[in-house]
Amino acid sequence: MADLASPAAKVAVIGLGSMGYGMASSLARAGFDVVVHDVRAEVAARFVAEHAGRSRPAKSPAEAAAGAGIIVIVVVNADQTAAVLSGEGGVLERAAPGAVAISCVTMAPERARSLARDVTARGLLFLDAPISGGAQKAQEGALTVLASGAPAAFAAAEPALNAVAAKLYRLGDEPGIGASFKIINQLLAGVHIAAACEAIALARRLGLDLAKVYEVITASAGNSWMFANRVPHILEGDYAPRSAVSIFTKDLGIVADIARSESFPAPVASAALQMFLMTAAAGMAHDDDSSVARLFAKIAGLELPERKI
Amino acid sequence: MADLASPAAKVAVIGLGSMGYGMASSLARAGFDVVVHDVRAEVAARFVAEHAGRSRPAKSPAEAAAGAGIIVIVVVNADQTAAVLSGEGGVLERAAPGAVAISCVTMAPERARSLARDVTARGLLFLDAPISGGAQKAQEGALTVLASGAPAAFAAAEPALNAVAAKLYRLGDEPGIGASFKIINQLLAGVHIAAACEAIALARRLGLDLAKVYEVITASAGNSWMFANRVPHILEGDYAPRSAVSIFTKDLGIVADIARSESFPAPVASAALQMFLMTAAAGMAHDDDSSVARLFAKIAGLELPERKI
Repeated sequence: MADLASPAAKVAVIGLGSMGYGMASSLARAGFDVVVHDVRAEVAARFVAEHAGRSRPAKSPAEAAAGAGIIVIVVVNADQTAAVLSGEGGVLERAAPGAVAISCVTMAPERARSLARDVTARGLLFLDAPISGGAQKAQEGALTVLASGAPAAFAAAEPALNAVAAKLYRLGDEPGIGASFKIINQLLAGVHIAAACEAIALARRLGLDLAKVYEVITASAGNSWMFANRVPHILEGDYAPRSAVSIFTKDLGIVADIARSESFPAPVASAALQMFLMTAAAGMAHDDDSSVARLFAKIAGLELPERKI
Repeated sequence: MADLASPAAKVAVIGLGSMGYGMASSLARAGFDVVVHDVRAEVAARFVAEHAGRSRPAKSPAEAAAGAGIIVIVVVNADQTAAVLSGEGGVLERAAPGAVAISCVTMAPERARSLARDVTARGLLFLDAPISGGAQKAQEGALTVLASGAPAAFAAAEPALNAVAAKLYRLGDEPGIGASFKIINQLLAGVHIAAACEAIALARRLGLDLAKVYEVITASAGNSWMFANRVPHILEGDYAPRSAVSIFTKDLGIVADIARSESFPAPVASAALQMFLMTAAAGMAHDDDSSVARLFAKIAGLELPERKI
């Protein structure tokens, strides 16, 4: 439970997507006074209605940040994070010196370092803190946080991190390290989803019992966290987005950008990126990322399970 | 314990590579009279010396199969399996009608069906039974077996399977289904190894602490069975082959062949296959399959850990 007399007791959460909404809920549950901002005012209003007495809406990132000891930024990408911080009506217009900005977006390490420079130049602290675990764990306060930054930034952020995370990795004293770890995780996660979809589609083509394939593979050396997690969506024919295809066109896009800027080949990640791009191009950008299997079905005339309504 | 009075009490094991040697050991330990054949006579002699009173060597597959109720074939590929069965001095020259041939090699489903036709035409039974788990589990009698075939073939094979397997999957009544499941597993396993090597090499390029990367990823959504199993080889700089690069040029080659023959795209598996081929081309075909990471190091001038001797 946070000390309500401390400045940390007021937390701003900017971005109420599936991750931000869950994190803001966990913070309210932990006793923080949560000020929320989202470009969709109705989402902020819904949050405030659900957490009456513990939360209020703000019209801008600047208004949300005014008086907050901790500012959590959970938007879509690095450009949005930069706009939230330094754009018109941005956090840096009104945030108090000594407050900490917790940056949760997956981005290139160099972008995280650049944002950190902007923030610290204004007397604030910056924590590079990408998150992992999905919407449900965000709601439960059980995320994994891959964080790096100055010890003072960790100290200032800790009460909020304790409320949202089951696992907090302290990966170094410099911003950019957290971002790098997240990128390595996303490279693997994206490849594993694309491979799972390719394998399930090929299994279907070979006439195998897909439920049996799931049973055998999850008990064998071909298993991955993503195979175990995503293949049930395919078996149920349920492509409602828990995590969308567009997340991986973005994150594997960052992997490709970094690899190229480092003159580093990444052929397997690149093949996976192309599969997510094809799936997005075929109209499924906002569907569940297991939709790569549906792309195979569409291309090859396969029948995969369809959701019974 | 097998009934020593039954014909099943004599088992032939043909092929004493790291898998076959372990399986033959498990069978001897379970009380079978094990007749072994390997093209390297000295390996068969070593096995017999280690299992005195329980085993003897045979000069050919035909000699090994004579009088055996169960014939386990654990050679390298489908062509070798065909030669062991139908070549000069092959199993079919002398095996007794009613004996069961257990085919453990990873091969295309159509090859398994074709071998089954040859074998059953001679009055023998055939079980399509690819194995998974590695040399150590073979030695412990704790393999996973992905089997399909006629109920009579299962019944005849069962005493031997119980001695070598911790998990026996009964996947169908027709040969080829076991082979198909194994191919799906190998698609995933090969992609996951190549992705693990790509990710670790990129992490090294980004200057990350690789032991920390291992700790974080194995607890995150980017994990795979292969990442957890193979990355320690890279961290220790130990590329002694537990499973060689050449296994995956073969098995992902089968995946590519099947996919092409089905007019089915497999872009992620194909990218992984190319990485194993590059690693083999660079002189590491017989080293551990985690050597794909060393290929990246060689290409990009990275320093990965080297084994301390």
